[in-house]
Amino acid sequence: MSRKLIKYNLMIPGPTPIPTRILAAMNHDMIGHRGPLFSAVMKEVMEDLKWAYETKNDIFIYPSSGTGGMEVAVVNTLSPGDKVIVLNIGNFGSRFAKICKAYEADVNDVKFERGRPADPKVLEAELKKGPVKAVLLQQNETSTGVLNDVETLARTVRKLQPDALIIVDAVSGMMAAPLKTDEWDLDVVVSGSQKAFMVPPGVAAVSISARAWKAYETSKCPKHYWDFGLMKEQAPKGHTYTTPPESLIFGMAEGLKMLKEEGRENVHARHKANRDIVRAACKALGLKLLADDAHASPAVTAIFPPEGVDGEEVRKLMRDDFNVEVAPGQSELKGKIFRIGHLGYVDSLDLIGALAAIEVLFKRLGAKINFGNGVRAAMELL
Amino acid sequence: MSRKLIKYNLMIPGPTPIPTRILAAMNHDMIGHRGPLFSAVMKEVMEDLKWAYETKNDIFIYPSSGTGGMEVAVVNTLSPGDKVIVLNIGNFGSRFAKICKAYEADVNDVKFERGRPADPKVLEAELKKGPVKAVLLQQNETSTGVLNDVETLARTVRKLQPDALIIVDAVSGMMAAPLKTDEWDLDVVVSGSQKAFMVPPGVAAVSISARAWKAYETSKCPKHYWDFGLMKEQAPKGHTYTTPPESLIFGMAEGLKMLKEEGRENVHARHKANRDIVRAACKALGLKLLADDAHASPAVTAIFPPEGVDGEEVRKLMRDDFNVEVAPGQSELKGKIFRIGHLGYVDSLDLIGALAAIEVLFKRLGAKINFGNGVRAAMELL
Repeated sequence: MSRKLIKYNLMIPGPTPIPTRILAAMNHDMIGHRGPLFSAVMKEVMEDLKWAYETKNDIFIYPSSGTGGMEVAVVNTLSPGDKVIVLNIGNFGSRFAKICKAYEADVNDVKFERGRPADPKVLEAELKKGPVKAVLLQQNETSTGVLNDVETLARTVRKLQPDALIIVDAVSGMMAAPLKTDEWDLDVVVSGSQKAFMVPPGVAAVSISARAWKAYETSKCPKHYWDFGLMKEQAPKGHTYTTPPESLIFGMAEGLKMLKEEGRENVHARHKANRDIVRAACKALGLKLLADDAHASPAVTAIFPPEGVDGEEVRKLMRDDFNVEVAPGQSELKGKIFRIGHLGYVDSLDLIGALAAIEVLFKRLGAKINFGNGVRAAMELL
Repeated sequence: MSRKLIKYNLMIPGPTPIPTRILAAMNHDMIGHRGPLFSAVMKEVMEDLKWAYETKNDIFIYPSSGTGGMEVAVVNTLSPGDKVIVLNIGNFGSRFAKICKAYEADVNDVKFERGRPADPKVLEAELKKGPVKAVLLQQNETSTGVLNDVETLARTVRKLQPDALIIVDAVSGMMAAPLKTDEWDLDVVVSGSQKAFMVPPGVAAVSISARAWKAYETSKCPKHYWDFGLMKEQAPKGHTYTTPPESLIFGMAEGLKMLKEEGRENVHARHKANRDIVRAACKALGLKLLADDAHASPAVTAIFPPEGVDGEEVRKLMRDDFNVEVAPGQSELKGKIFRIGHLGYVDSLDLIGALAAIEVLFKRLGAKINFGNGVRAAMELL
C-alpha cells in the first residue's frame, strides 16, 4: 500500500472504542468521593446497572478489571474445600478454575471442546454425582466467541441442586446478549466497564442475590479489599469502601444513559447484527469459524485464517498495513485463530472496513479466498 | 452570603484536582492493551515510577485503589501465622493491621497516639522481643497528617533484624515527601495515582525488592488477581496480567512527565510550602493542630475546629457556603477534627482562598478566632 492510513481501528473484544459523549463525561474535575455530589452519581450508576442486569439484587462496584470481579465472586461466597463445578469452555473458564483453586476450593473443572458451549446434559450428569456449593460459568467466552445458554444451564442447576450458587462471569456478554439475572435466578453476576458499557477498563460490578448473601455469612476465604461486608456499609450511601475510580464512574453514568436511550432490545439487536455481518463475510470468503451459528457470540468472533497463514501473522499485518487491531488466539488457540471484537461502540460500517482489510490482506498473502465476496455478503445484510 | 460562588474547590488528601494536561492526556482513544502502542506507554510509566520511587526494583501496576496496593504487598510476601509488626499511627495503620489479620498473619498492632509518628525506640523494643517476618508502616498517615521518619525506622529494622521485610504504604506520601526506596532498603512500597501524581483514582503501583521476591517464593497467602508471579511474566512486555485501566495509565504517563519537568526537589518544596502556609494560618487564627511541627505532613493537615464547633459541621458548611470540600476526621477522630489536603495539583493561592473561607466561616459561627490573621500569616509566607 502506498497510501498510509492514519486512523486506528480497535477491533478487539474490549476495551472497545469510547464514544465522545463518554470521553466528555470523563473529562471531569475530581470531586469529594464522600460528598453528596459524587454519592448522587454513584447511586445513579448502581441503579442503572440494576436495569442492565435486570435485577433487584445489590450491585457493588470495585476499582478493578473484570478478573478482579471474578475473584470478588469467589472469595465472598466460597470456603476452602468447597466443591464447585466450573463449566470451562475457554480461557476465562480456566481462569475461574484457577481462582477457585487459588482459594483452595475443590474444583471439578469440566472442560468442553474449544468453540463449543457448555452442554446442559453434561452439567446434569456432573450435578448428579453429589452436592456442590457453586457452579461457575461464562455468559460469553471471550477467548472462543461462544455464548453459553445461561438460562438452560441455570435451570439445570435449580432442578437438581436448588441451593447451589450460580456464579456468572458476564464481563464480555453483559448487554451484548440477554441476561436476566432475577428471572434466571443467578446469584453473582460480574461485569466490566470496558465491554458493552463502552467505558475504559478499571471498573468491575457484581450483583449479589439473597442466596449469595447467605453464602457470604459462612464463607471462610480470606478477604479484605473485595469483602462484601465492608462494601455493604458504604453502598447505600453511594460510597465504596476504598476510593472509587471517579473518572470511570462518570463514564459509566454516561455509558448506561446511552444504553438506556438506545433501549435494551436495540442494543442486543445491534450486537447480533454485528455478529451476523462478520460471520456472513467470513463464510463468503471461505474462512472457517470456531463457533457454530447456534452458539456464536454477539460480542466477538474467532476466525481461522486461510491454510498456511498464522493467526499471529494476521494480527501483525492487520496492524502494520491497515492500523486495525484484532485480537489473538489465547492459550491452546494461540496462532491458530484470530478474533474480531464487535461489541460496545462498534457498528456495521466499522466492521465492513475491517473486513475489507482482511480480504485485501489475505489476497496479498496469496491465500485462496473468494476476493470481494466477503464485503459483498456483509453489505447484503446492511 | 448573598453572592453564590460557582467554583468547586477540592481540598481533600486525594483525589486531588487534575491538571488539564492530564485530563487531555486521558481524553484518548482506547488502543490494544496487548499491542506495541500501549506497551510503550506502560514501559514509560514503569520507568518513570522508578524515578519517583528512587529505585531499581521492579514496579508492578494494578487496576485498584491504594488499599488494593496494600493488600498486594501483604498477600505476596506473607503466610498465615507470620509474625508482623504494624506501626499504627492512624486509620491506615489500622487498615494494614486489618489486612494482615484477614490473611491470618500474627499481628503485633503497635498503636501510637493519634497525631504522633511511630517512635523508633518503641520499634526497637518490639523488634528485640523476637524475629518478625515484616514491619509495615505508612510513610504519611492520611488520617492524622503525620509524616513518619521512614529512614530512621527502616534503619532500626535493618540494625536489629536485617532480613525482616519493610513494607511501606506511601500512597499519600509518594512525591509529597522524600522516599528513597533503594537507599533506605525498603522492600515493598505502595503508591496510588490520585495523590501527588495528580491522576484520578484507580491505579496502584508497588515496588518489589530482591528480599520481597525471596519472600514471595515461600508466601502461602492465597492470591490470584494480586499475584506477583502472574504479573512477572507480563511486566517486561509492558503488559499487565489483566486488562489495564488505559485512560488512567495515559494520565500517569503525563503526570509523571509533569513531575519530572518540575524536578523532584521542587515538588517536595512545593508540598512543604503548602503545609507551612496552612499551619501558619491556623496558628495565627488560634486553631490547634493535631500533628506537631516536627512531624507535620506535607500532604494533609488535621485541624481542630474552635471550641464548640464540630468537625462534621465545618465540613458541611464549607461545602454549602463556599463550595470547598474538606476531609472529615476518621474513626476515633470523626467530628473532632477536619482535614485540608494540600498535595498534588494544589498551590498556595488555592490554599489562601480556602483559608479565607475557613476564617469567614468561623467568624459567622461566632467562634473566638483572630479574624484576618490567618490569611495574613499565610501571605507572609508567599
